[in-house]
Amino acid sequence: MDAMMKMLVDEVRLTPILISDPPLLNVQGVHQPYTPRLVVEVITRGGVSGLGETYGDGVYLDLARPLAEALVGHPVTDVNGLFALAGLGTSTDTGIPLDEGVDAGGLRGVRTADKLRLSVVSAFETACLDALGKTLGLPVHALLGGKVRDTVEYSAYLFHRWAAHPGASPTDDWGAALDPAGIVAQARRFDRLHGFRSFKLKGGVYEPEREVAAIRALAEEFPGRPLRLDPNGAWSVETSLAVAHELADVLEYLEDPASGTAAMAEIAARTKVPLATNMCVTTFEEVPEAFAKEAVRIVLCDHHYWGGLHRTRELAALCRTYGVGLSMHSNTHLGISLAAMTQVAATLPALHHACDTHYPWQTEDVVTTRPVFREGRLTVSDAPGLGVELDRAALAALHHRWLDDDGTLRERDDAAAMRVADPEWRTPRVPRW
Amino acid sequence: MDAMMKMLVDEVRLTPILISDPPLLNVQGVHQPYTPRLVVEVITRGGVSGLGETYGDGVYLDLARPLAEALVGHPVTDVNGLFALAGLGTSTDTGIPLDEGVDAGGLRGVRTADKLRLSVVSAFETACLDALGKTLGLPVHALLGGKVRDTVEYSAYLFHRWAAHPGASPTDDWGAALDPAGIVAQARRFDRLHGFRSFKLKGGVYEPEREVAAIRALAEEFPGRPLRLDPNGAWSVETSLAVAHELADVLEYLEDPASGTAAMAEIAARTKVPLATNMCVTTFEEVPEAFAKEAVRIVLCDHHYWGGLHRTRELAALCRTYGVGLSMHSNTHLGISLAAMTQVAATLPALHHACDTHYPWQTEDVVTTRPVFREGRLTVSDAPGLGVELDRAALAALHHRWLDDDGTLRERDDAAAMRVADPEWRTPRVPRW
Repeated sequence: MDAMMKMLVDEVRLTPILISDPPLLNVQGVHQPYTPRLVVEVITRGGVSGLGETYGDGVYLDLARPLAEALVGHPVTDVNGLFALAGLGTSTDTGIPLDEGVDAGGLRGVRTADKLRLSVVSAFETACLDALGKTLGLPVHALLGGKVRDTVEYSAYLFHRWAAHPGASPTDDWGAALDPAGIVAQARRFDRLHGFRSFKLKGGVYEPEREVAAIRALAEEFPGRPLRLDPNGAWSVETSLAVAHELADVLEYLEDPASGTAAMAEIAARTKVPLATNMCVTTFEEVPEAFAKEAVRIVLCDHHYWGGLHRTRELAALCRTYGVGLSMHSNTHLGISLAAMTQVAATLPALHHACDTHYPWQTEDVVTTRPVFREGRLTVSDAPGLGVELDRAALAALHHRWLDDDGTLRERDDAAAMRVADPEWRTPRVPRW
Repeated sequence: MDAMMKMLVDEVRLTPILISDPPLLNVQGVHQPYTPRLVVEVITRGGVSGLGETYGDGVYLDLARPLAEALVGHPVTDVNGLFALAGLGTSTDTGIPLDEGVDAGGLRGVRTADKLRLSVVSAFETACLDALGKTLGLPVHALLGGKVRDTVEYSAYLFHRWAAHPGASPTDDWGAALDPAGIVAQARRFDRLHGFRSFKLKGGVYEPEREVAAIRALAEEFPGRPLRLDPNGAWSVETSLAVAHELADVLEYLEDPASGTAAMAEIAARTKVPLATNMCVTTFEEVPEAFAKEAVRIVLCDHHYWGGLHRTRELAALCRTYGVGLSMHSNTHLGISLAAMTQVAATLPALHHACDTHYPWQTEDVVTTRPVFREGRLTVSDAPGLGVELDRAALAALHHRWLDDDGTLRERDDAAAMRVADPEWRTPRVPRW
């Protein structure tokens, strides 16, 4: 078989799974006990398997299936062609209900057909690059122009949380964190376990005073360490400004204090605290207005949002050109995505902030070896592809959990999960405070 | 030798050459009979040679030499690292005189140390990608995410010109083109030889009326075909508007009618004729102001300007994001650069205009096989690397010409070349008309 023939896609396997997730609180509610993810395997005629991972809700699955069929016969080198193959920009008529207001799992503004498609493409692109790298004996970063650093720094992702989900399983030993002391204890454990230097607190859960107090407590416990607060757009402009004023001396940045570019721009104009976002700038279409209004000083990239690793590099080029900083967003994810995040982050010279990751919260994985954080950093793998191997037994078990589910957990819905504990709960209107 | 060892750079060869160039006229003067280019060869430990080509004036050579030394021992996959290795953004103290106002060969605004470095990096990046592709058995386009088209369209690049340089050699059989009839005859020959659909006329040579008449004559001869006029910033805002008004019904775009973003923005605001540029937007630093002022509707990319093929793709992403069109600029170049232009152009979905190329004017080359334009298009090579092979005898001959030169031709200076015919000639102040 000649070299190019070996690189043709022979088969694409889509495996929806449910992975356990702790009861982490956010403005919409609480993480479900299990959250859907989709594992994409691209198998070449040469017998190499490439891996990708993305959101696993039904809408993503519905878009992934035709793309999986369409990709067969294409070379894994053709990642630029994935966008057209996925119908990007061609039509908003996907048959998918787009009127639910927000993306259930992503907290990334109004749902559009193209946003969903980009998240699907991202997993296919990652899988193609993994397969290509494994075929060539090159790490994915080398397929993106090469790493510019040997380690990638991550931040500790702190959450207000319950000790356990209202039902029985799954459980972990982190215990509850419902006040500043709980958050500091959680941070101490993250610091001890993984050596994270930066701490990010998911806010928008309690009244702002309580979250300001948590940041203050962190600043006292860890003087000089970078701190971030992210209420997911829950606050008004005035509340955001008050928080920025109170925490100006300790915040590395304030992330999405209010919803929408207009509100963010108003806040940005009235505070020196840098504003970051993964909510008002989540697609290329949203960039020009936000940059023109100087609404954000830092964009949190996310290859699941932006359409893959090449597109993440394009976003980084945009940020560099406009003098906007770059960090990295995370949603619940497994080791495939963590490897992809690390590979692309390694290629971005202007990544001046530690990346976010939910990964330390995850107790299950579909890769054979869990990566180890040292001083909050992951070593950039130079192994072929992403440098991870699929644990097929684990994948099968998590897929069976998905098959066994009666449908209630296959769509991530943090508000529905909250209603298990509080039947009156509705997704709060923002600004909530 | 293991796979990664094979990809380490063992040696970098820099070969300055002088290539014959016809007496093409522009606002600065006339092309020299011979123009300097630099051929960069990156040779890996695996014995693979990768090719790159860029400007060959002394300032580029002076920057290329230390980069060639610094690159030894690095893998050819590490093209992201070239910018730091070349000292990009670190210092303007290159020891190079930067106060000459404009880049001699490039007509790309004020000369800066980083512009020169980017042009040097571009050749090294191309050479690394060529070596990588040859090592892996993959075309360069596959290293950039894959081609999205099988052919790339080029435009005919029409020039007012003399039949011969004032000295004796070199000569060609194109004859003079000094008026609309001459330009139409030239266009007919380009159409017949290469099948170009689009025609670009280099303007700024004669009074605007004469160049308007040439475009009118082309429009009559080739009804409905895309026509472009590029006076290299020679006109005032009012002249530009008058020309735009006169040619509104036939111009695909008007390229750099006036100098500077402010003048371009003023023209753009007062005409519906699309403005294009390769003069006021030639670096990422120049993008935000030009886009904010809506100074241009089309940016002409050029991997020699922007720092290579990856950076060209980043520029394309910027243009896509801001709704700005994309075309491609050309200066005098040989087959190595033409191959690089074609490979990167093949990966850009939003390249909606035919690319410029001087190539058909060149009678000499350092590649073994001259590419053939069919219906104005080049087929995108799927051969490993750039798909071109070095003609070492030809390279040696052109290098000997460079060695034999007394120094007068090693720096491209179109005004000095004009002074051979007209001793009183000085680079005109713009706006000239």
